[in-house]
Amino acid sequence: MKYLISLKRNKDKIQKIINKVYINMNLAILFGGSSFEHEISIVSAITVKKVLKNFSLSFIFCDANREFYLIDSKNMKSNHFSTGAYKKDKKLILKQNGFASKSLFGLKDEKVGTILNLIHGRDGEDGKVASLLEFNHIAYISPRVDASVLSYNKLYTKLYAKSIGVGVVPYTLLNSSDSRDINLEYPVIIKPVRLGSSIGVSIVKSADELDYALDVAFEFDNQVLIEPFIDGVKEYNLAGCKSDKFELSIIEEPNKEEFLDFEKKYLDFSRDGKVGSADISNELKLDIEESFKKVYSSLFEGAIIRCDFFVVNGEVLLNEINPIPGSMANYLFEDFEGMIKRLTSHLPQEADIKIDYSYINSIQSAKGGKVK
Amino acid sequence: MKYLISLKRNKDKIQKIINKVYINMNLAILFGGSSFEHEISIVSAITVKKVLKNFSLSFIFCDANREFYLIDSKNMKSNHFSTGAYKKDKKLILKQNGFASKSLFGLKDEKVGTILNLIHGRDGEDGKVASLLEFNHIAYISPRVDASVLSYNKLYTKLYAKSIGVGVVPYTLLNSSDSRDINLEYPVIIKPVRLGSSIGVSIVKSADELDYALDVAFEFDNQVLIEPFIDGVKEYNLAGCKSDKFELSIIEEPNKEEFLDFEKKYLDFSRDGKVGSADISNELKLDIEESFKKVYSSLFEGAIIRCDFFVVNGEVLLNEINPIPGSMANYLFEDFEGMIKRLTSHLPQEADIKIDYSYINSIQSAKGGKVK
Repeated sequence: MKYLISLKRNKDKIQKIINKVYINMNLAILFGGSSFEHEISIVSAITVKKVLKNFSLSFIFCDANREFYLIDSKNMKSNHFSTGAYKKDKKLILKQNGFASKSLFGLKDEKVGTILNLIHGRDGEDGKVASLLEFNHIAYISPRVDASVLSYNKLYTKLYAKSIGVGVVPYTLLNSSDSRDINLEYPVIIKPVRLGSSIGVSIVKSADELDYALDVAFEFDNQVLIEPFIDGVKEYNLAGCKSDKFELSIIEEPNKEEFLDFEKKYLDFSRDGKVGSADISNELKLDIEESFKKVYSSLFEGAIIRCDFFVVNGEVLLNEINPIPGSMANYLFEDFEGMIKRLTSHLPQEADIKIDYSYINSIQSAKGGKVK
Repeated sequence: MKYLISLKRNKDKIQKIINKVYINMNLAILFGGSSFEHEISIVSAITVKKVLKNFSLSFIFCDANREFYLIDSKNMKSNHFSTGAYKKDKKLILKQNGFASKSLFGLKDEKVGTILNLIHGRDGEDGKVASLLEFNHIAYISPRVDASVLSYNKLYTKLYAKSIGVGVVPYTLLNSSDSRDINLEYPVIIKPVRLGSSIGVSIVKSADELDYALDVAFEFDNQVLIEPFIDGVKEYNLAGCKSDKFELSIIEEPNKEEFLDFEKKYLDFSRDGKVGSADISNELKLDIEESFKKVYSSLFEGAIIRCDFFVVNGEVLLNEINPIPGSMANYLFEDFEGMIKRLTSHLPQEADIKIDYSYINSIQSAKGGKVK
């Protein structure tokens, strides 16, 4: 019996070591960017660093001028960036199959492993970072280019959701050049079509407040969406990804505040503790999960996203897709590290295109080499 | 009188010189790419080189591995690429504000001017090239990232067109995992959702041909569109851009062949002569122009695109958007060179985002510097 317990103990120990070795893979957190959410991205990266204990992590900072720097782990503190001290870190150049740094004898490859894209807002969520990494044959966790464009633009998100049979909150689209002489039932919520978070968003309670709210929103975009503001609407968040199978988080009923101020936003993006599941019926849970899967498949493969749903008269409506949620919504997952590991080995592969010049050769031979 | 004629002659001469000096600007043609249309892009670039006589041109080749090369003007012949001889040209590295080449003492900037994106298909039309250039603060003529994604994907093009009130040919979407047990009225045309040109496209005349055509299309994409094939439908092409105002080409009724074979495709992408306008009523002309403007505004600013329309029972329907048409559809324009020049000085500007770390600073001071 003693022997058996000892065996069991050793087995657990060995399994733990195996797990650790297995999970101890290279992952580079890419953060910063030329984005209104640049600072929030720094907070997000510092949080994810704390959560991913069993990875061998690197940190790549994209500064406001879009230069890349390899940040030493011990320098992952917000004032390292706000003071400009990061400029003393190693500057990186993006190239085919990875990053390089300048050395005396040209360029030296810097091995960083799979990239975890944590740039919120512009650059990270609008398709640019996905493009840079895809073009350069670098493995990455992030929405691909098309998924980024469809989720960065709230109008396209609506068109996409409707096309796959997922309901959305009704909306009116207004261009900055359009007449503002519109009939609305108040209250409404005004949102710039692009940009994440709550930037440029206002709740308008009556017609005389409309003009000012539109002015604010048009500061950030030339198109805005106007939606009915449903006071006290039930809101539920669900995050997830698809590795070899769907991996869904718990469903959270977020603590809603009309607006997140700076401090609250900081708390939101630096969350690393676990939260409780929303108290909802199993039927509603399944409905929300089904809607998430519809939105995710197959467009978002390679990404961990969070979908925010409204439930109105029992119907699940997609409010928005958060293609790169704050601190990757780690606090919603049972096994965040394991999921990242599994996703890393199930990233979508770009199709191979073989270029053999058979077309040019055939034209040249047909024309006796006259095609120049 | 003689004096007046001489004055007039001199004035014309001076004007010509002024035009030439004014137009003699730096433009770099970017072509190739990791794309099924890689070879076609080479043909396109050689054609555009012939047409843009009054520009100071550079040529940047993106090879199948996505390495960039600066090609000497005298080497702009198709066999320079098909034989791999381009590898002896200067290799370029993409960086902030332009390209650089490796030199003995590090990197040397290569001034190339505005980029004209002529990469057809993947990389060029799917948003990747737009992203690379935008991220690196390089001026470029091409659809922006969002415009690329919406026009590269035929399903998103339909959703977009419908959302702006432009009619489209009705369609059925089929995923590779969906049941093929579908009721269709034949003939139909099968198109992979992504990819340009006629790659993977089939006309299916009866149910027993469907399976094979779907197999072919699913070789290239996991989603296909099925549309009614309207035999003898009237088709019209219109190209254009917006500089300080809309600049629209003539409307062409293309010489339709069921399929373009290699030779015909070559002829299509190497067109540099002028063509005649379609013989249509002024009313229809205005309708087509109006539809073009709706599609173009404001999503495609910075690009020269060609829209292919069908006219069915008097209604103008968008068939497809060609975001980077073969040889930039130069043959459709009265003043192609002048238009490129004007467009170059009216390219969309990315909004400036000022990052001043006021948010991190405020959090740090609120917490007495405890935020790490």
